[in-house]
Amino acid sequence: MRAVCVIGLGLIGGSVLRAATAAGREGWAATASEVDAAAARDDGYSVEGTVEDALRRAAAEDALVVVATPLTSVREVLRKVAWHAPEAWLTDVVSVKDPVSIEVGQLLPGARYAGGHPMAGTSSSGWSAGYPELFSGAAWAVTIEEGTRGDAWREAAALALDCGARVVPASAAEHDNAVARISHLPHVLAAVLAAVGSDGGELAMSLAAGSFRDGTRVSAGSPELIRAMTEGNRAALLDALDDTLGRLGAARGALASTGSLKATVDTGHQARRRLEELGSIERERTTIPLDAPNALRRLREIGERGGRIIALEDDTAIAEVSPME
Amino acid sequence: MRAVCVIGLGLIGGSVLRAATAAGREGWAATASEVDAAAARDDGYSVEGTVEDALRRAAAEDALVVVATPLTSVREVLRKVAWHAPEAWLTDVVSVKDPVSIEVGQLLPGARYAGGHPMAGTSSSGWSAGYPELFSGAAWAVTIEEGTRGDAWREAAALALDCGARVVPASAAEHDNAVARISHLPHVLAAVLAAVGSDGGELAMSLAAGSFRDGTRVSAGSPELIRAMTEGNRAALLDALDDTLGRLGAARGALASTGSLKATVDTGHQARRRLEELGSIERERTTIPLDAPNALRRLREIGERGGRIIALEDDTAIAEVSPME
Repeated sequence: MRAVCVIGLGLIGGSVLRAATAAGREGWAATASEVDAAAARDDGYSVEGTVEDALRRAAAEDALVVVATPLTSVREVLRKVAWHAPEAWLTDVVSVKDPVSIEVGQLLPGARYAGGHPMAGTSSSGWSAGYPELFSGAAWAVTIEEGTRGDAWREAAALALDCGARVVPASAAEHDNAVARISHLPHVLAAVLAAVGSDGGELAMSLAAGSFRDGTRVSAGSPELIRAMTEGNRAALLDALDDTLGRLGAARGALASTGSLKATVDTGHQARRRLEELGSIERERTTIPLDAPNALRRLREIGERGGRIIALEDDTAIAEVSPME
Repeated sequence: MRAVCVIGLGLIGGSVLRAATAAGREGWAATASEVDAAAARDDGYSVEGTVEDALRRAAAEDALVVVATPLTSVREVLRKVAWHAPEAWLTDVVSVKDPVSIEVGQLLPGARYAGGHPMAGTSSSGWSAGYPELFSGAAWAVTIEEGTRGDAWREAAALALDCGARVVPASAAEHDNAVARISHLPHVLAAVLAAVGSDGGELAMSLAAGSFRDGTRVSAGSPELIRAMTEGNRAALLDALDDTLGRLGAARGALASTGSLKATVDTGHQARRRLEELGSIERERTTIPLDAPNALRRLREIGERGGRIIALEDDTAIAEVSPME
């Protein structure tokens, strides 16, 4: 099993280091946070003194480098990768993929890279918030672009599977459009809901119950991390916000003119029901030979259809796909 | 302890009947739903054959009548109360208060009425979804209007306390404005978020995780009940929707022009933090003599300041208030 070198020991990076070593991999890390470094060492993990040290070790041991910093620090880390480990296997766990893909293309044109994004998190952050089972059963996007190498994709996907996740193949742009709607938009709506509720004063806050608590929960997370991920996906999030303003304005108009919210409530209910059904449907298994010339295209089609990779065996990916089509 | 006559045996009415009888009160019910009636009888509860029978018994036993139907059926039930139990103690558990207050004023001008609204629920409905601890620790608004009688308010508040809730005194209009923001708006935003996410297709649904699940959870509830409560609070909800459209449009504009969501994210974070702090602050106790001429005005001020009544003893209400002012 390939060793992992994790750069950044926040909630996600810290959980990747724990999960990968729990799966039997050798692993080490580096982080700019002295607090996280000390806490990880106290817990028995190997933390190099500097990012440069960690990357040189990755080059020497042909490890998989995992960039787990906020988007705003990715460029600086990639410069160091380009200097100290230009040939390393490379992935990342940043929540937007197109900007990272562009940076990698500029700084590491020959990199053996596939981007990653585990769909897991809590409203806490830092090493102390992480745990090895964070990714268990979660979706973990692994990107496929025009120039993605099959062996690089396989290394990134194998890490996700070792961490207990299911791999969702997607292009960087498709990924970013999807997460704008199901991750970044929910954070913006939670912030707006919290503010509008709070404007209702003390009485409103003392009457607040389940629907308000659920709807605002993610606003409890670090404002810096929420900004890094939402602002980092600007174009796709603007599209999602425009759709939201359109639907919300239509709801407002219908309520004002006819008194009815039927279209809004019914459409939302059906969408939520569909989400719940997807969690319980029986999926069909299919296999994709990874040495076939069209392997990456087939993987991406599986992701577009809502399917996922659940295992890699020899030169084959085992996929679960919805039986509906 | 005064007997209770509960009209309607859905999630809320069914839980009130269970909680009130568990607290030692005599209790009986009636419902238009044969399914709920049979299930409640199977569980050993007293269910009269018709609403009229239940109300006649309430008149004979000087019981507290609890209207626990959707808003759309309230007028029909109140007509029957006016005919069969015009002198009964009366409250309700409907999620909007001004419309009910107006109906009571028209149909039962001499009623011994105070409106109620327990801030508790699940996304399931019907008798089978209820349980006696549903209201434990929850806020339960009990309304105080110009013409509210002290003894009627006390009867409604005592039921809430017997059900394990904390009583939040409020005018019907203040209540409706507050719940538009912290209950009805979250339901509209959840529906819109579910639809915009679903528009992202299969890939988006397969990547959906905690933030999308939390943000859309209440859309899983009955569309009929969601419509009854949101459409029933139209004027206040339109205000809340306008504030939301304003804040969301400002967020969209800032992201498009400056690339920053700082104002939106920071304001939301502070509001959510405030909500969390309110759950853990040490509150001061104060007492309100209920036979004083200004008692109802003092109770309402306590509600406006975010306070709540935690007990009624003899002629005194025990309140908890925030120490901040």
